[in-house]
Amino acid sequence: MPFSPIRKLAPYADEAKRNGIKVYHLNIGQPDIRTPRCGLDALKHVDREILEYSPSDGCLSLRTKMVGYYAGYGIYLSPDDIIITAGGSEAVLFAFLACLSPGDEVIVTDPFYANYMAFAISVGAVIRSVKTHIEDGFRLPSVEEFEKQITPRTKAILICNPNNPTGYLYTREEMEQFRDMVRRHDLFLFSDEVYREFIYSGGPYVSAMHLEGIENNVVLFDSVSKRYSECGVRIGCLCTKNRKVHEAVMKFCQARLSPPLLGQIVAEASMDVSGDYMKAVYDEYLDRRNYMISALNKIPGVLAPMPMGAFYAMVKLPVDDAEKFCLWCLRDFNWEGETVMMAPGSGFYTDEGEGRQEVRMAYVLRREDLERSMLILSKALEAYPGRV
Amino acid sequence: MPFSPIRKLAPYADEAKRNGIKVYHLNIGQPDIRTPRCGLDALKHVDREILEYSPSDGCLSLRTKMVGYYAGYGIYLSPDDIIITAGGSEAVLFAFLACLSPGDEVIVTDPFYANYMAFAISVGAVIRSVKTHIEDGFRLPSVEEFEKQITPRTKAILICNPNNPTGYLYTREEMEQFRDMVRRHDLFLFSDEVYREFIYSGGPYVSAMHLEGIENNVVLFDSVSKRYSECGVRIGCLCTKNRKVHEAVMKFCQARLSPPLLGQIVAEASMDVSGDYMKAVYDEYLDRRNYMISALNKIPGVLAPMPMGAFYAMVKLPVDDAEKFCLWCLRDFNWEGETVMMAPGSGFYTDEGEGRQEVRMAYVLRREDLERSMLILSKALEAYPGRV
Repeated sequence: MPFSPIRKLAPYADEAKRNGIKVYHLNIGQPDIRTPRCGLDALKHVDREILEYSPSDGCLSLRTKMVGYYAGYGIYLSPDDIIITAGGSEAVLFAFLACLSPGDEVIVTDPFYANYMAFAISVGAVIRSVKTHIEDGFRLPSVEEFEKQITPRTKAILICNPNNPTGYLYTREEMEQFRDMVRRHDLFLFSDEVYREFIYSGGPYVSAMHLEGIENNVVLFDSVSKRYSECGVRIGCLCTKNRKVHEAVMKFCQARLSPPLLGQIVAEASMDVSGDYMKAVYDEYLDRRNYMISALNKIPGVLAPMPMGAFYAMVKLPVDDAEKFCLWCLRDFNWEGETVMMAPGSGFYTDEGEGRQEVRMAYVLRREDLERSMLILSKALEAYPGRV
Repeated sequence: MPFSPIRKLAPYADEAKRNGIKVYHLNIGQPDIRTPRCGLDALKHVDREILEYSPSDGCLSLRTKMVGYYAGYGIYLSPDDIIITAGGSEAVLFAFLACLSPGDEVIVTDPFYANYMAFAISVGAVIRSVKTHIEDGFRLPSVEEFEKQITPRTKAILICNPNNPTGYLYTREEMEQFRDMVRRHDLFLFSDEVYREFIYSGGPYVSAMHLEGIENNVVLFDSVSKRYSECGVRIGCLCTKNRKVHEAVMKFCQARLSPPLLGQIVAEASMDVSGDYMKAVYDEYLDRRNYMISALNKIPGVLAPMPMGAFYAMVKLPVDDAEKFCLWCLRDFNWEGETVMMAPGSGFYTDEGEGRQEVRMAYVLRREDLERSMLILSKALEAYPGRV
């Protein structure tokens, strides 16, 4: 951090490809799942003469449809509580801009999605982290650990549930811990819940929006990117019942005029997708998760806790330095003309030196490619000179 | 300012519409011109199975095509000098984030596009303005007026050419003034040139990119929104030969992952539009401009300098307070069931009380609607109790 070391690897991946090496991308959350047909078809039926600005908070028809979607998860909103953004990313940026002043602090659990740091830096805010550990499956630390990080400048707790990169899913008790802390210190609870469709543990999905008594504290970040495998349409949203936050966010929305119109059309149509599609996608990820985690734990020296949700796993490797290892895989290694790209774990931790033996892998590739990737990884670990 | 008073008017426009009043929107730059057929058709031919992330700096095919577009204007770039953004707005925001620190100052000519202020506030930068005046057609002030505003915190001069909201087009001499100032004080020259297709004065278009010796100072903001009447696709770009700025902007681009994919597809296809389409659009705006300015100047007490480019006019009205007048037009007035919405001039000036008798009108409506709007405006001015 501040900016993920994964970016340093990109030129080496390009170079490997130029040299004819096939690279399996375990490094990014770009699923290979097909976008729903109804979403794609909507493009064919756009019969507008002018591709005009949409309203700054997004098309009312889309926001209305989202109300129905959320109701299915026991989250009760009105269209006026929802602001459509250019991906979940813009929701995070605008919430930070609206709620944080330079020097204000946000508490997150370490490791966390690296781009939160980029957005915090953009607005001059400071991330303070509470450590979680791969050894105990990234269990949430005690309230005391959070309280230690709270200062007069603390403005918010930021959670991602289910979690990217760890796959952790907060229990009801843990969510209530957050609720109590937020209430006690009058903080915002920023909650990124873009992976709610992908919970494999049977554990209940407890949204920040389900917590009673903190309705004015919660700002939800969401996106259709992962849900419908349409990351390119750049449609997300920010939901809040706090009218002041809504008003402040709207100023930034108005300054950027409007969210993408075509993405809104596709997102709205995608919401008509069948339950069968969603079930098939879920089953596919479940199978990939089960396969990948099991295969990883069979490789000597590898530790991969079972993720409860999302489609990422943090994995501890028997190497001196995962960043070096990831680079080496791209630059100095191939197995039968193929190699793997992974995201070095250090990119997800606040402090230098942390996550040094970890990588994040996204199980967004089809089973056959995942099997090949696991074979390549095991061969790479056998050959890597910095193995420990 | 800081946030345009136009937004206060929106609920009154909605209310008028609910009461069955037809509102002519002279207040926003949303053209009624059709998007090129080739752009719209591209949507019907999207044959992707997955709407994936595009690269953070945009699709190479689009950036390559833009190189050809710019070459047609004597601007020579490589695809690596171009970063695709979510509209011109994101280009402005990211340039500010990359180049300005809190407390840094940017010099603009007053009046200016109100959203520059919103973005400046977002990054904690300060706008310092050099006044231009409707009475002399918004002529550029002397170098001395600019030098007076330069302090050790000044980091950039921001221009919009042709200008929104004044329609002013900088002469070669004026552009060279900017070049010399930028060089003398080692400033960035941020240049918003989204209206280059719409220059009616016969005057040459001098891009900041044409100026020699300041290649590392120039950051160009651009957009396909107005050029192809596709504001909704949210595709703009930032062009710079300064590698450090490029690198810094890319960090923000990577944090927000990617620009809208579908908009890029439409924008790329729209660039195949025929010369006949562009000529017809140009002729249409020229006719509207000539008609509207002439009609305005025939109304007693109205002053409307002839805009040289873009599709806006700043207009001085014989009223006590243009903000009140605009509100009154929506709330208390109609002519045969119709009224007009205009943007109060005060929203485009830095200091309180400036532009108090001015409005900005966009000539983005077809001739027949403009004619009706001018009649309604003249009737409104006759009836308005605050006429001076």
